[in-house]
Amino acid sequence: MKVVIIGGVAGGASAATRLRRLNEKMDIILFEKGEYISFANCGLPYYVGEIIQEKEQLVIQTPEAMKLRFNIDVRIFSEVIEIDAAKKELKIHDLKNQTHYIETYDTLVLSPGATPIKPAIPGLHGNMVFTLRNIPDTYAIKDFIDRHNPKRAIVVGGGFIGIELAENLIERGIKVTLVELGNQVMGPLDFEMAALLHQYLKEKGMEIYLEDGVTSVRHEKHYSIISLNEKTELKADMILLGLGVTPDTTLAKTANLIIGKRGGIQVDKHLRTSDPNIYAVGDAIEVIDFVNGSPTLIPLAGPANKQGRIAANSICGIKDEYRGTQGTSVLKVFDLTVSSTGNNEKTLKILAIPYEKSYTHSLSHAGYYRGATPISLKVLFSPTDGRIFGAQAIGYTGVEKRIDVIATAIRSGMTVYDLESLELSYAPPYSSAKDPVNMAGYVASNILKRQHEIIHWHEISMLNKTNVLLIDVRTPQEYCLGTIEGAINIPLDELRSRMQEIPKDKEIILFCQVGQRGYLAYRILIQNEYTNVKNVSGGYKTYLAAVQEQSNRDVFRYEELHNDNS
Amino acid sequence: MKVVIIGGVAGGASAATRLRRLNEKMDIILFEKGEYISFANCGLPYYVGEIIQEKEQLVIQTPEAMKLRFNIDVRIFSEVIEIDAAKKELKIHDLKNQTHYIETYDTLVLSPGATPIKPAIPGLHGNMVFTLRNIPDTYAIKDFIDRHNPKRAIVVGGGFIGIELAENLIERGIKVTLVELGNQVMGPLDFEMAALLHQYLKEKGMEIYLEDGVTSVRHEKHYSIISLNEKTELKADMILLGLGVTPDTTLAKTANLIIGKRGGIQVDKHLRTSDPNIYAVGDAIEVIDFVNGSPTLIPLAGPANKQGRIAANSICGIKDEYRGTQGTSVLKVFDLTVSSTGNNEKTLKILAIPYEKSYTHSLSHAGYYRGATPISLKVLFSPTDGRIFGAQAIGYTGVEKRIDVIATAIRSGMTVYDLESLELSYAPPYSSAKDPVNMAGYVASNILKRQHEIIHWHEISMLNKTNVLLIDVRTPQEYCLGTIEGAINIPLDELRSRMQEIPKDKEIILFCQVGQRGYLAYRILIQNEYTNVKNVSGGYKTYLAAVQEQSNRDVFRYEELHNDNS
Repeated sequence: MKVVIIGGVAGGASAATRLRRLNEKMDIILFEKGEYISFANCGLPYYVGEIIQEKEQLVIQTPEAMKLRFNIDVRIFSEVIEIDAAKKELKIHDLKNQTHYIETYDTLVLSPGATPIKPAIPGLHGNMVFTLRNIPDTYAIKDFIDRHNPKRAIVVGGGFIGIELAENLIERGIKVTLVELGNQVMGPLDFEMAALLHQYLKEKGMEIYLEDGVTSVRHEKHYSIISLNEKTELKADMILLGLGVTPDTTLAKTANLIIGKRGGIQVDKHLRTSDPNIYAVGDAIEVIDFVNGSPTLIPLAGPANKQGRIAANSICGIKDEYRGTQGTSVLKVFDLTVSSTGNNEKTLKILAIPYEKSYTHSLSHAGYYRGATPISLKVLFSPTDGRIFGAQAIGYTGVEKRIDVIATAIRSGMTVYDLESLELSYAPPYSSAKDPVNMAGYVASNILKRQHEIIHWHEISMLNKTNVLLIDVRTPQEYCLGTIEGAINIPLDELRSRMQEIPKDKEIILFCQVGQRGYLAYRILIQNEYTNVKNVSGGYKTYLAAVQEQSNRDVFRYEELHNDNS
Repeated sequence: MKVVIIGGVAGGASAATRLRRLNEKMDIILFEKGEYISFANCGLPYYVGEIIQEKEQLVIQTPEAMKLRFNIDVRIFSEVIEIDAAKKELKIHDLKNQTHYIETYDTLVLSPGATPIKPAIPGLHGNMVFTLRNIPDTYAIKDFIDRHNPKRAIVVGGGFIGIELAENLIERGIKVTLVELGNQVMGPLDFEMAALLHQYLKEKGMEIYLEDGVTSVRHEKHYSIISLNEKTELKADMILLGLGVTPDTTLAKTANLIIGKRGGIQVDKHLRTSDPNIYAVGDAIEVIDFVNGSPTLIPLAGPANKQGRIAANSICGIKDEYRGTQGTSVLKVFDLTVSSTGNNEKTLKILAIPYEKSYTHSLSHAGYYRGATPISLKVLFSPTDGRIFGAQAIGYTGVEKRIDVIATAIRSGMTVYDLESLELSYAPPYSSAKDPVNMAGYVASNILKRQHEIIHWHEISMLNKTNVLLIDVRTPQEYCLGTIEGAINIPLDELRSRMQEIPKDKEIILFCQVGQRGYLAYRILIQNEYTNVKNVSGGYKTYLAAVQEQSNRDVFRYEELHNDNS
């Protein structure tokens, strides 16, 4: 049997080595149009930032090592330009020798990946405009910085690559302006969670333009002028595009493979395409969303690697299937960690799936042990049975640990009630006796069991003020530093003794800093004949970040750039 | 309704506050024989080591704050000395005023905790002998160190408290000798995993005597001489006992509550004792082992806190049950993390539960990103269906994260096959595209599916040498630095070309450093008409640590102490 694999990174490389482990006699050919196979694609931004300093560190396997260890015929600089699925033949363009030839296959594995989106904008070209997808891209960015010592960069697009690039440019001493068409960075997060990230990015010196896009670029001798929709003009020495990727289906189309609605190659659960002799894996395919069952595109390295292995198993007749992608991801940005899994509120809304949500801001570990910091954790779940749909977390340590636990809970179909009883490892340097995941479970369960009526940050502005009393149950000190407009202050510990100050005929909205004291106050009032009481979910912390973000977007922009450009 | 709670830490405090949240009108009395309620019991060792520097940090709730916020009648220095279950009355000894009085209850919650074991050994008493269970114990140890500036300490018992104390004493500049009756420290680990910890503790300057115990103590003016079973005499300025705890059932017995086989108070799944008006929680109760279903004692803070909440729910008529304890735990010792969950091999053997095991030594995150370190991970699972029984891990970062993920997998009844497809968060600073948990799943699944025949470190010495060929498939450089006795060296990448050197009539035992190259070599040979091939599970790393430990136990002991004592 002769298996040919097209694409030598992540999914393709995984498929090739797994095939060899399963079958020592099989002919395996791997085509890669570039120079490198199996490179550290997720590490590329860190080479720009000089966190990774050696070029060799970016290459996980060389063609020679792959040949020696796995007896795989690796052909680099070899672009497959056409598939004749009827004849089971490939037309290859040898880029080094500029020749063409035909290769046959019994089974084909497509792992062509995805292509960075580069919009057609006047002037958006030239040697100071970059995308980042492969090793040559990375070298180009780093060489440009090393040679030209740019002072200002514009990063267009606030996804993983955009933010990781921005961080690494700042590490190199470059001022970064991030321009994002949406009203937030990091699509996997919901708005109010992204708001926490926006705050942080601005503190780190990043200028952010949201709901704005590049309309044209004008190149001067040593810099460029970038015009945005909203009339702003920005000066920059380099432009980096992090606008996401689209599945590379060019080759798949030559074989007339079915392309799904979302634009990726359609595969079955064994990762077989519409042609029974062709499998496809990685960023080029459409996967099933594990949570909601719809087809989707989730270009991540973890799923790609797992798919490579599953395709190899299927080819060798080992029963295996891909169960869908839930989009678990993590982003490091300076010392902050942003992580999420499953569906967010935006997705659930689009699909009209009913959901409830909880917010907690538990400490990463015991407060009395040094270094404890809060983790802002949002959990989305079914209002009927409590099944977990997704979670998002932001904080400094132990963030992705909690998301990994919830990701595992989602895989097994757990509910928020199950989160309550999870037995997670506890010692003061690592967690609390009730882990943040347990706490999220408690808060969510209380909401579901109606032991706790909540109101969300975005619902507060819609309240009929005349019939509502807002009570800040924090300490007078906390209240003085800022509160929700119109709120009176009754500290939690005085609530029982000052209950006569609270009218029974109004709707009572309670809040504290993170939601916990508000919950205790809620429990006290609801058992004292107050019938219309709600607590602000996530407390003033969630409220403030989201509302500030909505109203106050531009205040953090660089003075300097304003002076330059206005 | 009047609910009385006995014991104000962990389970008791959790029960009290949850009761109040659920019922604003209930009378709640909390008795605590000591001065402190709700203290940071897991933080005590760190106060000794001055990591926690303020006394206030050890106290999570004061009686006054508890009264104010939760309207709970907290009575400290109040020892309940008798329960009259028929009359629903308690006899209380007011330790401050030295008076006695009677209090009634409708429902009682027992959270008396456990008592440190202090064996009757001649001379094992006096002001330089310590246990660590509460705040006064902690102050006593710290005061002794501050005043007497001890140079040498003996810690008896190598469990959590023993090792955490040893670490904190070393942080204070004290030389520590650890004496442990068993053949390993940290009972939740199996021998070969503990061996990795022994290596590390010795590197950190700790002297360890295993399979040895204190027979007598002789006090001189400024120090003591501790005699061990094995004829050794040790000089020390203080002795700390970390010999574990026994459930405190004294009070339960006055109420004639049923005590289980393991010596803890027997409770049902609602945490109700044999008396329908009495609940019990925390270290004093017998719980069901979540994995194997037997009654057991697992004195940990996480379960105690959760039990307090469940007892409160049950008392208030909210459906809730305790589903058992799986013993998830974590230990920090200097910069090392040791974590485990579920059953270990020792437990499975005792219960005659058939099991298989896998070892991996994956990196904590992408090798090309700074700071990646190996995590040694052992997974125990069913040889029939792959259900996960337990896991143990040792390493520097991301250790307890992987155990928490596996703990969640165990809770949901997952198999090692499920570990393969878990979608965990990946970016280079946090993990690899195939997380260590995925890798453990792959290795375990390969074993179960017979794609990989393994041999364990302890089976190697039992091999019939004349009929076996040991092949070290690492590089010549690695081979030179040390290998298994009698092994020849054929590097993996030369295996295909040097196959004629390998006889077909012998049993072939392959090994590499951590098991992965050995597995690749196994796959090559088994498909080339070699029928009797095995790979050493966990590789030379697991083998070496365990075998060195067995043969070579004493080499690391302090020269100095030898000179002093022999």
